[in-house]
Amino acid sequence: MCGIVGIVDAGGVSFPLYYALYALQHRGQESAGISTFEGTTLYTHKAQGLVAEVFNSQTLQDLRGNAGIGHVRYPTTGSKVPENVQPFNFRYRGLDLSIAHNGNLVNTVELREEYERRGQIFCTTTDTEIIGNIIADALRTSKSMEDAVLLCMRRLRGSYATVALLNNTVYAFRDPLGIKPLCIGKLDNGYIVASESVAIDALDGTFVRDVRPGELVRIDESGLTSVQVATANRRAYCIFEYIYFARADSVMDGTLVYDVRRRIGQKLYDARPIEADAVCPVPDSGIAYAAGYAKQSGIPFLEGLMKNRYMGRTFIMPTQQQRERAVRIKLNTVRGNLKDKRVVLIDDSIVRGTTSRRIVNMIRDAGAEEIHLRVGSPPIIAPCYLGVDMPTRTELIASGKEVEAVRRSVGATSLTYIPLEDLVEAIGCGERNLCTGCLTGCYPVEINGEKSCHCVVDYVAGTHQSDLSTFRAGKEET
Amino acid sequence: MCGIVGIVDAGGVSFPLYYALYALQHRGQESAGISTFEGTTLYTHKAQGLVAEVFNSQTLQDLRGNAGIGHVRYPTTGSKVPENVQPFNFRYRGLDLSIAHNGNLVNTVELREEYERRGQIFCTTTDTEIIGNIIADALRTSKSMEDAVLLCMRRLRGSYATVALLNNTVYAFRDPLGIKPLCIGKLDNGYIVASESVAIDALDGTFVRDVRPGELVRIDESGLTSVQVATANRRAYCIFEYIYFARADSVMDGTLVYDVRRRIGQKLYDARPIEADAVCPVPDSGIAYAAGYAKQSGIPFLEGLMKNRYMGRTFIMPTQQQRERAVRIKLNTVRGNLKDKRVVLIDDSIVRGTTSRRIVNMIRDAGAEEIHLRVGSPPIIAPCYLGVDMPTRTELIASGKEVEAVRRSVGATSLTYIPLEDLVEAIGCGERNLCTGCLTGCYPVEINGEKSCHCVVDYVAGTHQSDLSTFRAGKEET
Amino acid sequence: MCGIVGIVDAGGVSFPLYYALYALQHRGQESAGISTFEGTTLYTHKAQGLVAEVFNSQTLQDLRGNAGIGHVRYPTTGSKVPENVQPFNFRYRGLDLSIAHNGNLVNTVELREEYERRGQIFCTTTDTEIIGNIIADALRTSKSMEDAVLLCMRRLRGSYATVALLNNTVYAFRDPLGIKPLCIGKLDNGYIVASESVAIDALDGTFVRDVRPGELVRIDESGLTSVQVATANRRAYCIFEYIYFARADSVMDGTLVYDVRRRIGQKLYDARPIEADAVCPVPDSGIAYAAGYAKQSGIPFLEGLMKNRYMGRTFIMPTQQQRERAVRIKLNTVRGNLKDKRVVLIDDSIVRGTTSRRIVNMIRDAGAEEIHLRVGSPPIIAPCYLGVDMPTRTELIASGKEVEAVRRSVGATSLTYIPLEDLVEAIGCGERNLCTGCLTGCYPVEINGEKSCHCVVDYVAGTHQSDLSTFRAGKEET
Amino acid sequence: MCGIVGIVDAGGVSFPLYYALYALQHRGQESAGISTFEGTTLYTHKAQGLVAEVFNSQTLQDLRGNAGIGHVRYPTTGSKVPENVQPFNFRYRGLDLSIAHNGNLVNTVELREEYERRGQIFCTTTDTEIIGNIIADALRTSKSMEDAVLLCMRRLRGSYATVALLNNTVYAFRDPLGIKPLCIGKLDNGYIVASESVAIDALDGTFVRDVRPGELVRIDESGLTSVQVATANRRAYCIFEYIYFARADSVMDGTLVYDVRRRIGQKLYDARPIEADAVCPVPDSGIAYAAGYAKQSGIPFLEGLMKNRYMGRTFIMPTQQQRERAVRIKLNTVRGNLKDKRVVLIDDSIVRGTTSRRIVNMIRDAGAEEIHLRVGSPPIIAPCYLGVDMPTRTELIASGKEVEAVRRSVGATSLTYIPLEDLVEAIGCGERNLCTGCLTGCYPVEINGEKSCHCVVDYVAGTHQSDLSTFRAGKEET
Repeated sequence: MCGIVGIVDAGGVSFPLYYALYALQHRGQESAGISTFEGTTLYTHKAQGLVAEVFNSQTLQDLRGNAGIGHVRYPTTGSKVPENVQPFNFRYRGLDLSIAHNGNLVNTVELREEYERRGQIFCTTTDTEIIGNIIADALRTSKSMEDAVLLCMRRLRGSYATVALLNNTVYAFRDPLGIKPLCIGKLDNGYIVASESVAIDALDGTFVRDVRPGELVRIDESGLTSVQVATANRRAYCIFEYIYFARADSVMDGTLVYDVRRRIGQKLYDARPIEADAVCPVPDSGIAYAAGYAKQSGIPFLEGLMKNRYMGRTFIMPTQQQRERAVRIKLNTVRGNLKDKRVVLIDDSIVRGTTSRRIVNMIRDAGAEEIHLRVGSPPIIAPCYLGVDMPTRTELIASGKEVEAVRRSVGATSLTYIPLEDLVEAIGCGERNLCTGCLTGCYPVEINGEKSCHCVVDYVAGTHQSDLSTFRAGKEET
Repeated sequence: MCGIVGIVDAGGVSFPLYYALYALQHRGQESAGISTFEGTTLYTHKAQGLVAEVFNSQTLQDLRGNAGIGHVRYPTTGSKVPENVQPFNFRYRGLDLSIAHNGNLVNTVELREEYERRGQIFCTTTDTEIIGNIIADALRTSKSMEDAVLLCMRRLRGSYATVALLNNTVYAFRDPLGIKPLCIGKLDNGYIVASESVAIDALDGTFVRDVRPGELVRIDESGLTSVQVATANRRAYCIFEYIYFARADSVMDGTLVYDVRRRIGQKLYDARPIEADAVCPVPDSGIAYAAGYAKQSGIPFLEGLMKNRYMGRTFIMPTQQQRERAVRIKLNTVRGNLKDKRVVLIDDSIVRGTTSRRIVNMIRDAGAEEIHLRVGSPPIIAPCYLGVDMPTRTELIASGKEVEAVRRSVGATSLTYIPLEDLVEAIGCGERNLCTGCLTGCYPVEINGEKSCHCVVDYVAGTHQSDLSTFRAGKEET
Repeated sequence: MCGIVGIVDAGGVSFPLYYALYALQHRGQESAGISTFEGTTLYTHKAQGLVAEVFNSQTLQDLRGNAGIGHVRYPTTGSKVPENVQPFNFRYRGLDLSIAHNGNLVNTVELREEYERRGQIFCTTTDTEIIGNIIADALRTSKSMEDAVLLCMRRLRGSYATVALLNNTVYAFRDPLGIKPLCIGKLDNGYIVASESVAIDALDGTFVRDVRPGELVRIDESGLTSVQVATANRRAYCIFEYIYFARADSVMDGTLVYDVRRRIGQKLYDARPIEADAVCPVPDSGIAYAAGYAKQSGIPFLEGLMKNRYMGRTFIMPTQQQRERAVRIKLNTVRGNLKDKRVVLIDDSIVRGTTSRRIVNMIRDAGAEEIHLRVGSPPIIAPCYLGVDMPTRTELIASGKEVEAVRRSVGATSLTYIPLEDLVEAIGCGERNLCTGCLTGCYPVEINGEKSCHCVVDYVAGTHQSDLSTFRAGKEET
Repeated sequence: MCGIVGIVDAGGVSFPLYYALYALQHRGQESAGISTFEGTTLYTHKAQGLVAEVFNSQTLQDLRGNAGIGHVRYPTTGSKVPENVQPFNFRYRGLDLSIAHNGNLVNTVELREEYERRGQIFCTTTDTEIIGNIIADALRTSKSMEDAVLLCMRRLRGSYATVALLNNTVYAFRDPLGIKPLCIGKLDNGYIVASESVAIDALDGTFVRDVRPGELVRIDESGLTSVQVATANRRAYCIFEYIYFARADSVMDGTLVYDVRRRIGQKLYDARPIEADAVCPVPDSGIAYAAGYAKQSGIPFLEGLMKNRYMGRTFIMPTQQQRERAVRIKLNTVRGNLKDKRVVLIDDSIVRGTTSRRIVNMIRDAGAEEIHLRVGSPPIIAPCYLGVDMPTRTELIASGKEVEAVRRSVGATSLTYIPLEDLVEAIGCGERNLCTGCLTGCYPVEINGEKSCHCVVDYVAGTHQSDLSTFRAGKEET
């Protein structure tokens, strides 16, 4: 999981990129970086840490120019190495190319081998470096970035929402299935592309539309143009973006995430109506679900858990011994809202089950009579190969286990997952247009040893066309 | 506004004090400090910054001993000086006294003058130093801390919840009207007193009861004893603790704060029933109010505002020029939940009106059709002299202004404040037992140039008695 | 050991104070602080850390005004507490007094008891607080700061070089024996007083003269005036300032410290002429001694030890286990300058002997044939009660031990200390005008249980007189 | 300018690498990095900052394994970019190669073009990436690292002292002319290679010998072996290492640097004997020169300039306006050692002349009668292309200017540079074995548009042989 952003703006881009990355901070807290370009120089500043820690006034002022890209990164297991911090730069025959990427390729091994056979030496083990290499390599023979991206997209298999900075121009492209989100906004003096629309909101920009799956967008000082590089017979939006990752105030591929979660909450009640005294969300993502459940059921929305907002990087977590005495420092129960009550507890998902078990225990200790756990996603039974940092099958509590067994394990009075069809309906674009790999074990791209759903992609050598005329705020012209 | 805590525990106190202060962090983010005592040495570490910034593993290990006190401090106007950081130490004839204080005295000037006439030189301009001086001075002639506190309380006028560390013993006392909160908890190997019960929760302790107004509590290794030093014919709990300051999961003087706020929400609907499409809280404190309003009205709870959780001390706020483009970085609107809707917007209070006006504007820009602002407190028309950092009368938007004028100023479709009698009923202890100075201009203690409600305090030279027998969890034995 | 400075300058004082403190950083690395005054407000910023760590551009800009004082503090045993950080403030009947102090009182206990009997409660255990209290107390009855300081000096016994800020005026006074140094400089738009003349150099000021023992100097915007508050029949300049503490480029009470050390080096040779191949200083203070020894003996100056300049506060010192492999990280030997050579090793003093033993070992390991240790001070046999952080008698290697025993203990081929009379001659002001307590066990002030040399002090209720006329650069008008 | 180190040691290498880098800190203060290897994982931690700032206990503990390399980097003009921080990693067909490099290639452009023609995309503009690419590329076809380095060295033109970590093995090689230094030390349980012998001293290791020009050294757990990959008919040791860069306590290619500088000092007197009162070094590097001059001339060594030791990264330098009042904060004059004296001022070199002019002015202001500037290098008249960050010809004060003109410009009474032949004699290895490019304009490698001295290099496909038998401490077996 990562967040990406690209901006071209006549008034300078480093501060807008900073605020946009800050709006995307929930997509990655491990590292942050910005590249900008002015004159003949590519400027890059990146390091491990939160956006507010990595940059200061001086470093932002040093990032000169009116075009740039930025990145925040989530720590995937075992990869806390400084060399993975993005954007990643490529120097090639006088070209300075900087790339930032959100997603995961599934044919990395073949691509690396092919390029290594041809002599390419890599600096990192990241997909980003492979993408950058293919593009830079293609730029040798092709005349344009458009052709290079076309060549590149033909080779990549997996998910990739990517921004690239080449001299004064920002390019952005999205895989043919649109697995990872990317959208376009208009600023007073330029354009922005970003993983989520909240980055556009932060800059008081106007949401234009999502980048289409398979589309390459180009932004320079003369405006925005676009070319459809690939078309597919379906889409495969990551279902987990709607369930957990995206901010609730983001509009993603035409749908407000908050709406999706609220509708899931409603359907969770309809799927198994019960009587209860309070609907309690697990903070923070559970609140939208609980709002929907409360509305549908008429059971009052009531917080039973309170999160401490001041947890920082330097906070000293209690040792095992201290933990016996310091247990509710991060998440406290509101005893008065739970005691002797029949509680509907709403969470977005259950992955390993450890957190759910701990929370159910806390709520029972606070005196709740019944705890009905309602979950905003179906059981997660398979790993994700396309960009979500999921554990292996054996660590997934629901993998190969009946719902009743999960219920016993987490200790709830009753447990209901949202049925997949209800979830799909809540999102609204049809199962055919969603990636449900982690819920069904069937993936929209071919993955070694896994089942794959058929999808056909056509790659088109198109010409770049300005469709500025079609960019009317809020209008999705599909 | 400050948070205080005192702990005696056979297993060491610096880490428990750290976690307790962290639970009280919302009461003060300007500075933090801890004093402990072991052998013959008083250890103190304090500095400006958040709890997690001021302490590290080493400084906590250096704070040795089984008795200690802690403090977090709110920045009151113009007083960001290091010398005001608490706890404050007093050295007197081999006694090492450390004191931390929450509240505000109203007879500071007279007390200072009196003590200065007698030759006392002060190091700071804080009330804490005055309190410590009176106690240390009284210890010269009196035999016991009990007598010294009695003498001290006779002199002080105002609000004071205070913890003191004298050698291995922690003392805690609360002003005769109980203006500022203080409660007692039982730990596995000792006792804790703290401003709010959430500090007890953080350590998985058991809530025992509140410190009674006018009571002096003493904790040492042999347990907890108490003496009633003063009695009054009324109480004067700060009404703003319930409205805004306290954490919703705190139980304060017998009442869960969340309950109070939820009941206020219900009464806000009853006071002026309307039809609308969504009940939107102003985060974070508005949520409990909105939950109550939604339940009572049947109008769905729906978040229209989202707060960015990653704001840190080093975050670079936009300059005026950048602000034009970066406006929604701290608080974003959820357009889809607001557009074309009749919105009930619920906030805890309106002070200067600036924030309300900005939020109403944002919501209107997001397309809301009607914005009905409902406020969890009556109009604030007078300053606070007893510990809340309120602006002067001229800066208070509601001071000398009709509600309609305030409504026009903030731009809402309609505006309703909770009536005082409803608020008092929601809290439940009777107006006579609340300080409503900021709402009525009538104060429970005499203040120069202000109206004062009558109250009578008796000071009793009592003997310290163990009432451990009466300390049964959750039982309030008034 | 501490460093103090006071400046009045029409162009603002916070930055000049910062640079002056930086020049005095060698006198104390534990904490730093500055107080300034403007309008009716006393501004103070102080914290633990080096000067460059405690202040930044913002904190310096916030220290407004044209008059101020500053302090750097050395960590004396067991006192790393934030409350000891200076300057120390006193609030008294509308007066704001800030004080910074270098030295040590020997009648602290009596003074505290007396003031405690009269009701004064102290905040710290520092001498500074006592001095400030006496002055503030005296200001009650006396009309002027001059009288208050006179009253104060009559009560204090010990060493004290003190700067005080009262409103827009800086006061500076020195104990009647002048134990701790203090000097005056002229700036373009004002005056400076500082512990050492290097602070004047840093600001490109002109050295005027030392503050006379027993003198009170007053600086305000109209210039500098002075009054002789006390006179004594002798002086007692701290001999260790010349040997170790002061920077070699300081001029102290009329004498360049470098000159003193160079002369000691010369006399060290004369006291026991030997043949050798190289004169090696222990860095950094030994260099001036070695320069003198080399000149007198004709034996070449040659460095045998090199110090690493990059040691910072966050440097991870090797653990015992790592130390076996990492031994010469702070101080390395220059093997080629030592191997097969007869080495004269010159150090300023031997206190515990531990460092000397380690250095002699390193030099022997580097192949030196003979190691003749020459020491710039006589044997230290007694503790210091007047401001130098010396160990107790039992920890002093030379206490109660013959020189031959010390030689065996540190492992040198030969060992010679400078004879006291030679040292006194090298300084040039006569033994009568020096404090030699640590070398002779006889102190210039009465100390319980120690021998004291007679000295008589007269306190004069003088009037403050401008002696600006006598302030001609470089002219010492004694 | 950079410093490099490689260690294989059975007891873990991260802490030894840290201490070794700290000993080499003078070679680069811009950034620091360490790579280690354990099991199948390459660990790297690197960032901008001093060694003590970049690493902490945790990051060092995370750098696991018994083999590793480290790097400190000097900021060369315009290259303060995080991507240049070393070590640099290369991932190639399951191999993890990490490389750190000191030096500068002169055929970078051709090499980049060649590799770019073959499709290689680069991430940075550094020489290190080119070196790593050639090696990794060669590893495709060659069987061994030895062959790969041989292939690599055939392609590189310029200076390169390089350490490489491939799995558990450390490789180190030096260009055929030995332009940049590299030496070998024995530790208790392994071996170290480092830029300077002081790194060996820091770990209490035993100096073995220098890495020979053109030699490839290989260290693994079974010990150290070596192969001579290239031989040349001459050497070209960087003359500036002896004059300025290396620490005086380093032994470099058989010679103690302190000895060289002392001998230069002696010859500086012989070259133009004069009468004077004091020999003053410019700190810190001038001291060894001054020691030699003082010995030869009989004129006393006497410091006239004192450096403040506490300058840190966060120190606020005075602004232009403040500078008028704060001039001697970094470097102060010892007036008493200069006033009315004929001073011989000794510095290592004059580059732009700005510093010399400022220092001469300060000394004149302090009252010196005559200032005879003696310089430890001949006039610098040409740029360096081989690793020293020199300005262009136009900025060099001595370029195209008579000595008399330089003297007038810096304001000295007289000015003498060391004659080249004397300098060469002081170093002792013959002009043929030194790179004197910056002094003569004639370089040991071909550089576009510059004169080049002939040198012939033969590359030998040798077999790696253990020469452990010849590793006797201090013995150079050429």
